[in-house]
Amino acid sequence: MVDDDLQARIRRLEDRAELGELIAVYGRLLDDRDVDGVAALYTEDAVFDSTEGPMTGRAAVMEYYRGQLDRYGMTYHYPHSHTIEFTGPDDATGVVSAHAELAILPTPFVVALRYLDVYRREQGRWRFVSRRALQLYAAPLAELPDVLAGTLRRRWPGTEPAPADIPESLPTWQAYSRS
Amino acid sequence: MVDDDLQARIRRLEDRAELGELIAVYGRLLDDRDVDGVAALYTEDAVFDSTEGPMTGRAAVMEYYRGQLDRYGMTYHYPHSHTIEFTGPDDATGVVSAHAELAILPTPFVVALRYLDVYRREQGRWRFVSRRALQLYAAPLAELPDVLAGTLRRRWPGTEPAPADIPESLPTWQAYSRS
Amino acid sequence: MVDDDLQARIRRLEDRAELGELIAVYGRLLDDRDVDGVAALYTEDAVFDSTEGPMTGRAAVMEYYRGQLDRYGMTYHYPHSHTIEFTGPDDATGVVSAHAELAILPTPFVVALRYLDVYRREQGRWRFVSRRALQLYAAPLAELPDVLAGTLRRRWPGTEPAPADIPESLPTWQAYSRS
Repeated sequence: MVDDDLQARIRRLEDRAELGELIAVYGRLLDDRDVDGVAALYTEDAVFDSTEGPMTGRAAVMEYYRGQLDRYGMTYHYPHSHTIEFTGPDDATGVVSAHAELAILPTPFVVALRYLDVYRREQGRWRFVSRRALQLYAAPLAELPDVLAGTLRRRWPGTEPAPADIPESLPTWQAYSRS
Repeated sequence: MVDDDLQARIRRLEDRAELGELIAVYGRLLDDRDVDGVAALYTEDAVFDSTEGPMTGRAAVMEYYRGQLDRYGMTYHYPHSHTIEFTGPDDATGVVSAHAELAILPTPFVVALRYLDVYRREQGRWRFVSRRALQLYAAPLAELPDVLAGTLRRRWPGTEPAPADIPESLPTWQAYSRS
Repeated sequence: MVDDDLQARIRRLEDRAELGELIAVYGRLLDDRDVDGVAALYTEDAVFDSTEGPMTGRAAVMEYYRGQLDRYGMTYHYPHSHTIEFTGPDDATGVVSAHAELAILPTPFVVALRYLDVYRREQGRWRFVSRRALQLYAAPLAELPDVLAGTLRRRWPGTEPAPADIPESLPTWQAYSRS
């Protein structure tokens, strides 16, 4: 029946709008220190995988966030672009480009990110099943001009300069470099 | 009837697209000094509330913009994320995260913003009923690394350093800090 | 028939989503050095018009990209806002605001951009028929605070400082300056 098809297409467009808002709200709630709000964006079995490796389960993810946020002053997480692929009626994956400005006290940092996301609709709402945050760079804002042209672009406090997650590790980058 | 429901859902999706373009066009017209174009984005009774307090009525809003723009060289206003809530058939609210780069002659400034918006469809087109611009920071670009880790992040020319509008003032931030 | 109209409106919303992804994917593929992926985003007869004038035909466009990318380290292209106007069932134009961070070895540059785009649906997929990249500025990241307040905001390596493409050249800017 035609209506069923139209209905399904409208649903997908609504899903895209909801997933766009999920991404927008994630940064805002984090920046506002609304940790209960952030927790509700994740499924119970969610995984967050960033600088310290994968944290599994909503409780562990939230503990990770609290550990980070406790050392931070102002933060500003903002997404740039978002692509979405549906893998089932209530399942999708996405890629988000973003920056985060983080006052890791006493030093302001800036991070360029690509999130690899998995989403699931649960209790009528799209949530993160997993977020993997790949870093193009993470550096003190004041040192950015010195850091960007090299490959050791991860400069977290108290660590040795380390290679960025992307793009140099990607097969397409490596194939291009060899050509 | 089914079609009425589908029709309404499609309308909402179209409304979202239009509201997204309203936000995009706002920055572009302002940066291009198309002040008539900017004026048409506001309703007659609109309010713009930024650094100098609320300006009420489209004419007052435009006078405020002209007063600011007259002191500026190049500006670049760009939005990041946008969430929308419909409050009636022709009414909505929204939250926009953004940055603005402003050459407040002779000094380039950068401002991190969260707009709290009210929209109304008037004469067939979505417009701003009000925009409230909350600042996470406003500082000379060259001083940003020194400003971001503190709380006095409003550094407008000719004023004393002042606290940023957000996030420290938010109930969620304050509850988190106490915990 | 009502369904035809609804169908067409849904199609337009889907087109908007696809065009949004085209813009997102463009930056990502370029940053990943997936040059075959980038090539597939363009029509055979496409034009790319940036710092070195218009390149005509997909092959010439790709040769231009390769010439640029060969001198670059990490790049990060990210879009901010996107407006779309449909000019036919399979034709549209768009305006995109964006930044690009480019490690033009050995110096990191930052570019503020407005893309004027033409899109066409070909073989069932939206592609670029032309992209014209207008620069608000292009400067070494370290020099940005000194560059933004002037008009000579194009500072490409090995060239004399030159006027930016926009906004000073725009009729609206010039009319405002005279008023």
